[in-house]
Amino acid sequence: MKVDGRHYRTIWLKPDDARIVQLIDQRTLPHCFVIEDIATLEQMATAIRDMHVRGAPLIGAAAAFGMYLAMQAQIEPRTAAQILRETRPTAVNLAWALERQLERIAKGQSWKEKIARAREAAEEIADQDAEHCRQIGLHGLELIEEIATQKKRKPVNILTHCNAGWLACVDYGTATAPMYAAHDRGIPVHVWVDETRPRNQGAKLTAWELGEHGVPHTVIADNTGGHLMQRGAVDLVLVGTDRTTCTGDVANKIGTYLKALAAKDNDVPFYVALPSSTFDWTMRDGLAEIPIEERAPEEVKYADGWSDGRFVEVRLTPEGSPAANYSFDVTPGRLVTGLITERGICQPNEQSILSLFPEHRR
Amino acid sequence: MKVDGRHYRTIWLKPDDARIVQLIDQRTLPHCFVIEDIATLEQMATAIRDMHVRGAPLIGAAAAFGMYLAMQAQIEPRTAAQILRETRPTAVNLAWALERQLERIAKGQSWKEKIARAREAAEEIADQDAEHCRQIGLHGLELIEEIATQKKRKPVNILTHCNAGWLACVDYGTATAPMYAAHDRGIPVHVWVDETRPRNQGAKLTAWELGEHGVPHTVIADNTGGHLMQRGAVDLVLVGTDRTTCTGDVANKIGTYLKALAAKDNDVPFYVALPSSTFDWTMRDGLAEIPIEERAPEEVKYADGWSDGRFVEVRLTPEGSPAANYSFDVTPGRLVTGLITERGICQPNEQSILSLFPEHRR
Repeated sequence: MKVDGRHYRTIWLKPDDARIVQLIDQRTLPHCFVIEDIATLEQMATAIRDMHVRGAPLIGAAAAFGMYLAMQAQIEPRTAAQILRETRPTAVNLAWALERQLERIAKGQSWKEKIARAREAAEEIADQDAEHCRQIGLHGLELIEEIATQKKRKPVNILTHCNAGWLACVDYGTATAPMYAAHDRGIPVHVWVDETRPRNQGAKLTAWELGEHGVPHTVIADNTGGHLMQRGAVDLVLVGTDRTTCTGDVANKIGTYLKALAAKDNDVPFYVALPSSTFDWTMRDGLAEIPIEERAPEEVKYADGWSDGRFVEVRLTPEGSPAANYSFDVTPGRLVTGLITERGICQPNEQSILSLFPEHRR
Repeated sequence: MKVDGRHYRTIWLKPDDARIVQLIDQRTLPHCFVIEDIATLEQMATAIRDMHVRGAPLIGAAAAFGMYLAMQAQIEPRTAAQILRETRPTAVNLAWALERQLERIAKGQSWKEKIARAREAAEEIADQDAEHCRQIGLHGLELIEEIATQKKRKPVNILTHCNAGWLACVDYGTATAPMYAAHDRGIPVHVWVDETRPRNQGAKLTAWELGEHGVPHTVIADNTGGHLMQRGAVDLVLVGTDRTTCTGDVANKIGTYLKALAAKDNDVPFYVALPSSTFDWTMRDGLAEIPIEERAPEEVKYADGWSDGRFVEVRLTPEGSPAANYSFDVTPGRLVTGLITERGICQPNEQSILSLFPEHRR
């Protein structure tokens, strides 16, 4: 999507030297826009581990490009994959992208061939992710168009939580894809951006990417969504997901469940956008089965931001007060209006999901 | 309640010079504990206006003490009251305390008598507030005791939002009073403290006062309550209120409604603690009638905290992103289990409320 009027992806090959990978270093957003050159496997491992890039689909693409860099340095493929795999052990897409690369690289006889195949596979993985997100955007666009017609072209107010944007993917994003699709077609949208404590991905990343692409938006405290829905100021809730069961239970950033409850209480449609790679076909009960990561309490105790031209971390809590930091919650399928996938929209139940993805029928 | 092992109220007459009022300057909490001497009407007006003290009951008491200071300086009572009234125009208790003072002062013939009566009234107002909170504590204690018995004396987990603590009152607090009463009687309680963005009154004030009094607690992001309730980690939600209709609709800090929805969805009892002065006997429909203050968007865009031994404000959002800052939301009575008042616990409906406060029957 656009940054300062120019189109970007989150990761790409350097235009004048395709041996090098470039990516947007997301650690300094929204305060500085930094493009980083990544020339080695080690640099890519660091970029993933230290979250220069984040978001499951983007991590997968970054790992695939990391394998391409490793082949250039003639590093044994399984060794390279192991180094990348260990950077973020819980990301499903990371392991998937590495497996796909290992298969492709194995077909190359010489290092030259291995390099060519690794490059091809990395570009394919990135392109496929972008294409899936574009498709999600087109399917979600229909929902927004329908509301826009009902509202006689007054702005459609969409609430989103965390960053399920193009910064988490290669392009378009998941939850944001329909917003961009609508905006680019001249359908007026306005996005309520939950700041998403404790890491503030909404305030930092979603607000930034919407702003750079020119989409009208307003940042709100996470406490605000219910009030806005009570007052009729939200037409649609649109969020991403980190893992969704085949029965439609949705794990997403902590706080999503609270917004889903408010949407239900106020008859606001609540949609979840996801590439099908996010379905967990083995799980049937999200609350019982999806493990919830607990992160460092310091993320709750501190907030970091921009002050006098530099990053500063400030402590919010008393020195002696403990904090707890659960990263995700599970929204039961009964609170979800629909799931927007690259193949279309389905209902949050096994039958409807499998009708779009029959290859997962057992 | 206790600070560093010693009992404090939020406001009092200086022990060795009763012409001077002392108060805890809450602006620097939780990072510095500062007691401020207030010797003049102007100093008290500044303390209220600039939020050295905050919380409706405490603002009322502070204004009453301000009138006492004004009488010492022989300032015409109505002029003094007007100066104090303009400091925080929306606080109901402020106007109420000033009216009560004006009546009492009018009965004094000489300045000496006016000073004596103003002092008497200020001390009465402070004592009455503390006594009401103490009574709320005793009524709420019964709820906690019941749960503690059911849990076979395992800690009772209470979730609270914002600061309805002794720092908002003269002593004990409203929502916190039952927690302190239980803790002081040896009933094990543990409090989940919502940080309460955007002003972080939970992270700053509630965590501090619970910690100083020795009550076990954990600070959480506002997004977390629903997840904790889904997992059975909350036995009781206990919050305060800024205004409650005679039909039981509760206006409180933004985000309260979301926690009430989660409590309902998970069968967790949701109680609101309030002195009866918080009832608005003229309103019957909270959502339609209670005005919701919108504050400066900067409170959402920035977070302030402690860094390297000083206060620093950091910007969280992109420079160009707008923010919205609604201060309160309305929790419909249907989501409230009960109201804990100084006269006992009632249900969130007119009949039950008026059975405790029959003098408000029309």
